[in-house]
Amino acid sequence: VRDGEDVIPPLDRDAAAEALALHDRLTKPRGSLGRLELLGAQLAGIAGACPPPVPTPAAVAVFAGDHGVLVHDVTPWPREVTAQMVTNLCAGGAAINVLARLVGATVTVVDVGVGTPIGVSPALVGRRIRAGTADLSVEPAMSIADAEAAFAIGGEVAGDLLGRGARCLVTGDMGIGNTTPAAALIAAITGRAAREVVGRGTGIDDAAFERKVAVVERAIDLHADAIRSGTMPALAAVGGLEHAALAGFIIGGAGAGFPVVIDGVIAASALLVAEALEPGCAARCVAGHRSTEPGATVALDHVGLEPLLDLGMRLGEGTGACLAVPLLEAAARVLREMATFDVAGVKDIG
Amino acid sequence: VRDGEDVIPPLDRDAAAEALALHDRLTKPRGSLGRLELLGAQLAGIAGACPPPVPTPAAVAVFAGDHGVLVHDVTPWPREVTAQMVTNLCAGGAAINVLARLVGATVTVVDVGVGTPIGVSPALVGRRIRAGTADLSVEPAMSIADAEAAFAIGGEVAGDLLGRGARCLVTGDMGIGNTTPAAALIAAITGRAAREVVGRGTGIDDAAFERKVAVVERAIDLHADAIRSGTMPALAAVGGLEHAALAGFIIGGAGAGFPVVIDGVIAASALLVAEALEPGCAARCVAGHRSTEPGATVALDHVGLEPLLDLGMRLGEGTGACLAVPLLEAAARVLREMATFDVAGVKDIG
Repeated sequence: VRDGEDVIPPLDRDAAAEALALHDRLTKPRGSLGRLELLGAQLAGIAGACPPPVPTPAAVAVFAGDHGVLVHDVTPWPREVTAQMVTNLCAGGAAINVLARLVGATVTVVDVGVGTPIGVSPALVGRRIRAGTADLSVEPAMSIADAEAAFAIGGEVAGDLLGRGARCLVTGDMGIGNTTPAAALIAAITGRAAREVVGRGTGIDDAAFERKVAVVERAIDLHADAIRSGTMPALAAVGGLEHAALAGFIIGGAGAGFPVVIDGVIAASALLVAEALEPGCAARCVAGHRSTEPGATVALDHVGLEPLLDLGMRLGEGTGACLAVPLLEAAARVLREMATFDVAGVKDIG
Repeated sequence: VRDGEDVIPPLDRDAAAEALALHDRLTKPRGSLGRLELLGAQLAGIAGACPPPVPTPAAVAVFAGDHGVLVHDVTPWPREVTAQMVTNLCAGGAAINVLARLVGATVTVVDVGVGTPIGVSPALVGRRIRAGTADLSVEPAMSIADAEAAFAIGGEVAGDLLGRGARCLVTGDMGIGNTTPAAALIAAITGRAAREVVGRGTGIDDAAFERKVAVVERAIDLHADAIRSGTMPALAAVGGLEHAALAGFIIGGAGAGFPVVIDGVIAASALLVAEALEPGCAARCVAGHRSTEPGATVALDHVGLEPLLDLGMRLGEGTGACLAVPLLEAAARVLREMATFDVAGVKDIG
């Protein structure tokens, strides 16, 4: 996959314009549903139809991987927790399981690069490419072939979930330490300084924060040539296996004409990769929420997405994106189900 | 009903503290669910139980009334549209009908003061006290007896919906011109200037905006004595029948120990009335969204509520509040359904 090799067609302008025009005939003051009206037009543009189809059921995919950068103590959580949380996700006990049940979404857990053994579970999709990445501050996190393999798995999972009836995709992640490669990817692609995109992750003190900034700075310096040479080499140099899988997942959903809901900083970094590889992706994505991680906002701004929710969340797994699914459904349903002024016999002031 | 005559007991501090402590044992970094964690603690405090009960199904009540202030052209919509929209609401074609269906809530439409005849509908609860209010800029909008009657109806509707199984109440309104009395109530109770709390309502031009500000200023001047004498006289002087009913509805829900979701500026003005009459109400309310009407933010700030959603909405009917219902349910369900570190075998870093 080379940068900009494939281009996803732009949104269907006619369908989007038709949605906005329909909104002006619905029994409410014009524009009074705010963001929901623009979201409805976006959904119409994605589907090429007005009113847009209902974008549910949603399907969450949680891609899991481990990270060599953990040797620098960028997080207080030990590596083993990734595998433990994968087991928890497969058993239905994690936050995303609860929220997905609430919005009627499925959760698919995919091991693309966990570093410790995981007990067999029928709920786990085992596609481990390697047992975690290498330390991105001293060598490439992975080979380009590994990055491409993870990217391909993400695309396969997207196609599989859509084939089983999903009408929107939700981007989930699990990987202790994965906000560090996310910040590195965001710095690499946007050109912003490490300090502007590194966050506190799951909650680190000032010393750990400084280590994290320094690690990202070193990685960006060390891999400057790879970063300059293209998005896939950059992804391999400073990314993670779940980031690569998510980039493929986003392209898979957007390319098939379905909305993809972006979660926090991991998904946002993957979106930057996806948009660089296949321009047009981001227009088919919805930013579910504004994570407290500063890199998420930098990445979303870079591709012109404004988050729907802002609840101070920083959990990952797809949780913030999942909570936005009812808003997507609402945006489609008001266009499909509300009465127009003429049909309802309500006077329109024009 | 006199100011502060009844006091609603404070939130159960033990249950709220237990919810926060439970959150720290759930399989996620501490605090990583942000606002959802605080909302869960509030729900526990309201119910006096941890984990809190699931606050669904929700029930929306839309109280409808007309307004004498319309003679000053404070809105481009004619008075008849209130009755037409009530018919639309009863037929299921309005925005709140669509959104309530989406979140599994019922919609009850209550005529407390519509000014034009409405066709009989089995979906309409006819409790009209008078055919709209008088012009608040030249005389009291209604008598204290009328305000108390509307207030009582709101309380009855709350009790009825809870009796039929609702586990949270959503505040809806319909009334052409009703942002003017809402602004007047907010100015009267908070002491803020008319210009700071008057908004563009359904969308008015500069000239109409200036008329609206002037009308609210005149009303506050004219009824200064009534406003000083107490909340119920203030409500009668510058409020509306639906505002009065909503105040009773909020007290009914909060007093019975259930969360009440506040919608936009009409509901927020009613919340000010409710909190003044029965202190402790606001702690049992959740601000569903931030309306674009400036008065809504002034009112919510006054009682210390921070909205959950901010989607640029200004429709009323309960729409913004209804969209927040899944967030309330999510807040309760994560506390009820997520695994703890020890049960899931996930290492907690403490």
